[in-house]
Amino acid sequence: MSDTFVVVGGDAAGMSAASKAKREDPQLNVVVFEKGEWVSYAACGMPYYVKGEVESLDDLVAVTAEEFREERDIDLRTGHEVVEVDPEAETVTVEGDGDTFEQPYDHLLVATGATAVEPPFDGLDLDGVFTIHDMDEAGAIEDYVTERAPDTAGIVGGGYVGIEMAEALSARGAEVHLYEMLPHVLQPFGDAVAEVVEDHLREQGVHLHLDTAVSGFDGDGAVERVVLEDGARPADIAIVGVGVAPNTGLAEDAGIEVGETGAIATDEFGRTNDENVYAAGDCAEARHVVTGEPDHVPLALTANRAGRAIGQTVAGDPEPVGETAGTAIVKAFDLGASRTGIVDERRAREAGFDPVSVSISAPSRAHYYPGGDELTVTLLADRESGRLLGGTVVGREGAKRIDTIAMALTAGMTVTELRNADLAYAPPFSPVWDPVLTAAKVLGGKLD
Amino acid sequence: MSDTFVVVGGDAAGMSAASKAKREDPQLNVVVFEKGEWVSYAACGMPYYVKGEVESLDDLVAVTAEEFREERDIDLRTGHEVVEVDPEAETVTVEGDGDTFEQPYDHLLVATGATAVEPPFDGLDLDGVFTIHDMDEAGAIEDYVTERAPDTAGIVGGGYVGIEMAEALSARGAEVHLYEMLPHVLQPFGDAVAEVVEDHLREQGVHLHLDTAVSGFDGDGAVERVVLEDGARPADIAIVGVGVAPNTGLAEDAGIEVGETGAIATDEFGRTNDENVYAAGDCAEARHVVTGEPDHVPLALTANRAGRAIGQTVAGDPEPVGETAGTAIVKAFDLGASRTGIVDERRAREAGFDPVSVSISAPSRAHYYPGGDELTVTLLADRESGRLLGGTVVGREGAKRIDTIAMALTAGMTVTELRNADLAYAPPFSPVWDPVLTAAKVLGGKLD
Repeated sequence: MSDTFVVVGGDAAGMSAASKAKREDPQLNVVVFEKGEWVSYAACGMPYYVKGEVESLDDLVAVTAEEFREERDIDLRTGHEVVEVDPEAETVTVEGDGDTFEQPYDHLLVATGATAVEPPFDGLDLDGVFTIHDMDEAGAIEDYVTERAPDTAGIVGGGYVGIEMAEALSARGAEVHLYEMLPHVLQPFGDAVAEVVEDHLREQGVHLHLDTAVSGFDGDGAVERVVLEDGARPADIAIVGVGVAPNTGLAEDAGIEVGETGAIATDEFGRTNDENVYAAGDCAEARHVVTGEPDHVPLALTANRAGRAIGQTVAGDPEPVGETAGTAIVKAFDLGASRTGIVDERRAREAGFDPVSVSISAPSRAHYYPGGDELTVTLLADRESGRLLGGTVVGREGAKRIDTIAMALTAGMTVTELRNADLAYAPPFSPVWDPVLTAAKVLGGKLD
Repeated sequence: MSDTFVVVGGDAAGMSAASKAKREDPQLNVVVFEKGEWVSYAACGMPYYVKGEVESLDDLVAVTAEEFREERDIDLRTGHEVVEVDPEAETVTVEGDGDTFEQPYDHLLVATGATAVEPPFDGLDLDGVFTIHDMDEAGAIEDYVTERAPDTAGIVGGGYVGIEMAEALSARGAEVHLYEMLPHVLQPFGDAVAEVVEDHLREQGVHLHLDTAVSGFDGDGAVERVVLEDGARPADIAIVGVGVAPNTGLAEDAGIEVGETGAIATDEFGRTNDENVYAAGDCAEARHVVTGEPDHVPLALTANRAGRAIGQTVAGDPEPVGETAGTAIVKAFDLGASRTGIVDERRAREAGFDPVSVSISAPSRAHYYPGGDELTVTLLADRESGRLLGGTVVGREGAKRIDTIAMALTAGMTVTELRNADLAYAPPFSPVWDPVLTAAKVLGGKLD
């Protein structure tokens, strides 16, 4: 009889693994349990649904449940929650369709994702207070905005979600107040990016409240105010986006080890401490390409890639899940902001490096060619070895150039090696020295 | 007494070298001879001057002659032509200001550039027939277009110059006919790019005549017709852009060796066979990052970088000139097309590889996010080693992603290593799998 591969969770990592495993080994019995109804959806697209640029939540679904079942021959059970894993017996306990049953497995993938963190705020249960971490909640926000046409929005948290929702709710006509307890938004992008983004947010009419702790919300049934330590401000809708936490409970209860980051510890093949149990996606750790240490980077590509690799491994052709550089990009109104690797000097020191950094601004196109804009590029390197550790890019066009820096990290390049890379130039696309090369040139000068 | 560094040619390579040498060693006596009047200008910007997007030719000058003299303390002599080099005596013979004199040197840089090839055409001397390889000629084209308002333009050659001038002259109101003797335009970009570009040129109203040899021009004083092997077509202006040839005469007469490519042979520090004589820019060879062999890639970044490195070497701190991947990008109306490395299977085989390639098309943004367009990515790899050899990108946005592939070549990566790179994703910027990663994924499947 063929092996059975059970997948817990039907989004990026889970469905990538299921699809790849079945494609590589059509004899494999592939069963996916998803507790909700949505599978294989682009959570990153939800702010654009709220904004009104994406017509339907269905548009965010890459492959439908029906397609997985009919075309890919995957036994996908939506509305089914795995409530227990028994690694000794190699079974999972499943609740669904009003029933509870045991499902045996030969290989198990835990792809339970992450959940939006809910801080200990008052008034989280008021109408009009939302996180945005699943499709149903995105739908609920859109409905609320359409019904209530909020004049004022209070957004708590200046990370991806906060920035993207500021853009979305501004577009829907709300006056947006963004509350961030740290001195800057987009903390993982470093100060050079944050300052450019903050100026732009203010230009776009967003009221920034930095260094400002929120303690909750109040209102009569529905939210009316964001409560601060020293007062309150009006809000007809509130979005809480203060980060996500990996869903590790199911795994931990089964004796699966969690790493220092709080996510499930895995080896280079995505295997946990139980050799038949894998973990991938937002619930799992990945190895960092610069430090070689486990990290928790809950992003879509990492999840997709790890899922795909695990699917191949389960099908009998072992494939490493790959490393993460923590590469990320975010749109903030007309700006793009991006980051990769280690961009924080303190963290670089903790990892044993002696960091040196530069920030430069340069035009995105030849200075005389119309339509370009200033790009700010920051690079961080280790003084002794000259090795590149990370970087950021921010500007109206060209934030995707972060990929050049990510490639340098993947290759373990020094600043000089990056500076000598032969990048593309023509006046409509870049100055002769691409801004990334200019940054490397300037940083090289500081390292000499 | 301080050393004297003599530079022949005042554009990208020459002025980069002069500036860097003087900055690193202010005691150095730096003398530049430029036979024309323009220095440090962006030849790549000339089509956009003709198009009308760049107001003045002066806008294309990065640093003026006056700035080099006053601010950088460089003895820059425009209107001075070096007519002979005597490597034994370590002198050059210079003609200028109605005078001929000898200039001794300790270090010499030959940065004589390249010249537009003039095929053995009839009627090259007719009014209205141009190449576009220097600023004066760009000025003359603009004047001619303004005075004559040509109804029909005949462009000979479907390379960068031909494509860019087709866009420029269309914008100026001419009906453009583009003549290319090969079956496709943009031969160094491969067929996958050429086909996309050709469709787009036709959509933009350009009449393409592929596989069509031109024998010359005729007209009464001014050009009136492009003469083909079997007939003639009207043309009120004609541009010949069939490539450039390195200016090696001065060096060859002095016994400096020329390589197989026809350009001046150099070592990793840009040194010729004479240890005090360097060569850089469009007249010189550079080492190819994939083959390790000398190549002739007359592009601006290569020239700037080599000049800068030679300046540093001359100042006493030896710096390799870097390698070339032949990375290039060109705008064709609304499209960007780019290439890097080896993209031609025949050339790959000549270099000892067993080439395997794929072309894929994928959206430039998440499929549900508005405003994106299809990108076509081609990758070429060596079957046995899996090493990436080159690639191309073409589309309305994202052609700069060629830099990702160029970085992979610089690092000597395999297709699998590229596929595992952590590139940036958010819906406005990319699908989860960047099109370059998708191409690597598909090519990896063919290599297994």
